[in-house]
Amino acid sequence: MPRLEDVCRQVLALITPSEEEREHVLGLAKQIMDSLRAVLEEEGVDGEVRLEGSLAKDTWLSGEADVDIFVRFKPDIPRDFLKGRFLQIARRATAGLRHVERFAEHPYLECLADGIRINIVPCYAVRPGEWLSATDRTPYHTQFVLSHLNERLKGEVRLLKKFLKGIGAYGAEIRVGGFSGYLCELLTIYYGGFKEALEGASRWRKGTLIDIAGHYEGREDEAREFFRHHLVVVDPVDPARNAAASVRLDKMCLFIAAAREFLERPGLRFFFPGPEEPKGVSEFKHELEVRGTSIIAIHVKTGGMVPDVLWGQAFRTLRAIRGLLKNEGFRVLRATAWSDEEEHLILLLELEASTLPPVVRHVGPPIWAVEHVKRFLRKQLSDPDLVSGPYIEGDRWFALIKRRWPRAAELLSSKLSDSGGRAIGVAPLLAKRIEEWFEVLEGPQVVELCRSLPGFKAFLEAFLRGRPAWLVPEG
Amino acid sequence: MPRLEDVCRQVLALITPSEEEREHVLGLAKQIMDSLRAVLEEEGVDGEVRLEGSLAKDTWLSGEADVDIFVRFKPDIPRDFLKGRFLQIARRATAGLRHVERFAEHPYLECLADGIRINIVPCYAVRPGEWLSATDRTPYHTQFVLSHLNERLKGEVRLLKKFLKGIGAYGAEIRVGGFSGYLCELLTIYYGGFKEALEGASRWRKGTLIDIAGHYEGREDEAREFFRHHLVVVDPVDPARNAAASVRLDKMCLFIAAAREFLERPGLRFFFPGPEEPKGVSEFKHELEVRGTSIIAIHVKTGGMVPDVLWGQAFRTLRAIRGLLKNEGFRVLRATAWSDEEEHLILLLELEASTLPPVVRHVGPPIWAVEHVKRFLRKQLSDPDLVSGPYIEGDRWFALIKRRWPRAAELLSSKLSDSGGRAIGVAPLLAKRIEEWFEVLEGPQVVELCRSLPGFKAFLEAFLRGRPAWLVPEG
Repeated sequence: MPRLEDVCRQVLALITPSEEEREHVLGLAKQIMDSLRAVLEEEGVDGEVRLEGSLAKDTWLSGEADVDIFVRFKPDIPRDFLKGRFLQIARRATAGLRHVERFAEHPYLECLADGIRINIVPCYAVRPGEWLSATDRTPYHTQFVLSHLNERLKGEVRLLKKFLKGIGAYGAEIRVGGFSGYLCELLTIYYGGFKEALEGASRWRKGTLIDIAGHYEGREDEAREFFRHHLVVVDPVDPARNAAASVRLDKMCLFIAAAREFLERPGLRFFFPGPEEPKGVSEFKHELEVRGTSIIAIHVKTGGMVPDVLWGQAFRTLRAIRGLLKNEGFRVLRATAWSDEEEHLILLLELEASTLPPVVRHVGPPIWAVEHVKRFLRKQLSDPDLVSGPYIEGDRWFALIKRRWPRAAELLSSKLSDSGGRAIGVAPLLAKRIEEWFEVLEGPQVVELCRSLPGFKAFLEAFLRGRPAWLVPEG
Repeated sequence: MPRLEDVCRQVLALITPSEEEREHVLGLAKQIMDSLRAVLEEEGVDGEVRLEGSLAKDTWLSGEADVDIFVRFKPDIPRDFLKGRFLQIARRATAGLRHVERFAEHPYLECLADGIRINIVPCYAVRPGEWLSATDRTPYHTQFVLSHLNERLKGEVRLLKKFLKGIGAYGAEIRVGGFSGYLCELLTIYYGGFKEALEGASRWRKGTLIDIAGHYEGREDEAREFFRHHLVVVDPVDPARNAAASVRLDKMCLFIAAAREFLERPGLRFFFPGPEEPKGVSEFKHELEVRGTSIIAIHVKTGGMVPDVLWGQAFRTLRAIRGLLKNEGFRVLRATAWSDEEEHLILLLELEASTLPPVVRHVGPPIWAVEHVKRFLRKQLSDPDLVSGPYIEGDRWFALIKRRWPRAAELLSSKLSDSGGRAIGVAPLLAKRIEEWFEVLEGPQVVELCRSLPGFKAFLEAFLRGRPAWLVPEG
């Protein structure tokens, strides 16, 4: 077994940007910032152009640079300005680059240069606590982190980020529901290193509270009551914000489990899970058949939806559909969602079986509920789907009746055909798309999707495997 | 719809013994009592020969006479005498009749004459409360009932008995778990009539207390606490005895439900359910196939077991087997038992399906339980039956594994082959028989049993129908 320190050293060598890469990326950033400053001056707009994010904090990973350039405006600049003229200015300053407009709380501009993503984001220059927009905190975050990191700790942040990426828990976006870069920095600062952060996490409990700046010293229970989350990391620059609010319970637990495993049996596999041997589609189909479960996919076209909205709708809908299937007697083993975030969304369900026996036991009212009993008996006795009974067991009436929906795919098709499934809890924006088009696929049909959707096959394979790549048999 | 009074009049005409039948049965009783008295005198044994039971109380049903003859001994007669010499005396007094020895708390003699069952039962002449054996109360019961019944009420008792017989809730034996003849008499006396008793029952609740003699007046909650049963009818001749202790919850509820229905829509069907059209075995098989459920039978040879013991063991075992199947993922719709009370016992189960999908979700420990998790992961990762995972959902580890027992019949055969199923909760006396021989049958094989077991077919048909005969669609 490799020593933990050796693993970290090896990883660091791979993820720390070289001087050359550093110069290239920082040069690109400087070029755009200069250009932005020039355009702002030309247009007579007063705004402070600043480098933020992991590049400013020197905690970015080699090959994965994101250039975050913020333009900080005085609080008297109207919001409409940010939505309109600001974007024009940013576009002019980056003329010649590919542009994408993104919407968070307010719009920002994303462009690509040499495969490097550049975000140009507006914010207000306000004092802490007087936030006018969500991005106003960022300069303070940068400041806090920079003043608490030395060279060694920057490497430790990189290790933690790469570790979380490797286990699939990095990123505050809804798709991931994991740990943001800023949260990685806070954890590294709080625990004093990467290994120390893992040791800390391995002791976490539901309701763990980390309060670096001591905002709630002596009032920890109050903080827990205020945030009501399984993991609370109080933002040092904003006592009212949980920097870990994005972390879903399963991702918190995944991190804890992986941390424990890494501390006991360190290895590169946590950081570089590596792609599995790709399978042919027909081999894949055969595997699915041998497996013996039923895979069902709901395919929806979601072009134009912002990713965080898309994933929010997808997860909400998945929960509703899982509930529907369960209520109808299907045993759902697992459920997940995949999307290219451009056009296609696949809700994926694995069931013990997609068909159920034709008869089901209907639990009627207790015999004491006289009026319910009357209605129940009248209904059952005239129901052509009655198979046996009604009969009494214990103090209750029961009946055996024909199962309404013995096939999961038919159940789903029918419920989704009715106004996009709104009645069964499909999230509204998704229901709208479903009204336009959807398909329910089963087994080999799902595997066929791999041919037309790049990236879906690897996802499906990982889903079917289930086991995290870092979890391997001992010895 | 017939009027309730007309129905009762019609039924009474059919169930009240004619003068001729009365003379015949009472003549037979007198003859045996005389003979008993003669033998007792010959042998120099001091014992009072008395007629007890429904014949003495004149509450018996035409065609169903049971002659209960008691011999009441002084308390100083030793118990051994009852077990040995008493039976010899009874046998001598009924020489020429077919004899069966029965065992309740102590042995008694049963014989048959002209198809009429005659029970010769010993008891002690003791004062109330000083009971030496369970049958000592009987003469007091007879006395209490006779002193509270007039001619009209005797007919009302007959109606109530026949009603309970018709709905399958008559009899204190474990097979039925219903209402004894004495309990019918008490209810008729308490409510003042048959219709009144049904009206009373239709208002019963769990924990209903009926205390005719007022033993617990003002202390009703104390009585409920003492008896702890869903139905308490305090025995007027013994405040420590619940005359309804034998009534199981489902039979109590069946009576309540039938009583309500009869009061709303009276009819002969409650008293005379009548046999359904008998079906051919092959027609029966086809019906079962169309039905779509799975019928499983466990066939055991139980020769020589006393019925109450047999049924106690059967019901206990049925609960255990139902639990086993449920734990393994099978959905049990219904379960019941049949026996000829001579040789064969059939435990009968109806399942949604007797085979289950090959993969099952295994719920592992929450990630917080560090040592459990270690063991779980080690076990799963080295398990050749692992299909997918382990993976985390919420704060728990899960794994998909090959189902150990996808076939119910195989599961049952295997578990019963292991020391008669003691480990899964088969009752010990039955486990002993199962160790000697058993078979697990499925679907058409169960129908085949109808050919060799008289009475089983009608039982199976009624079981499959499920619906009580008195429960018919309105109009």
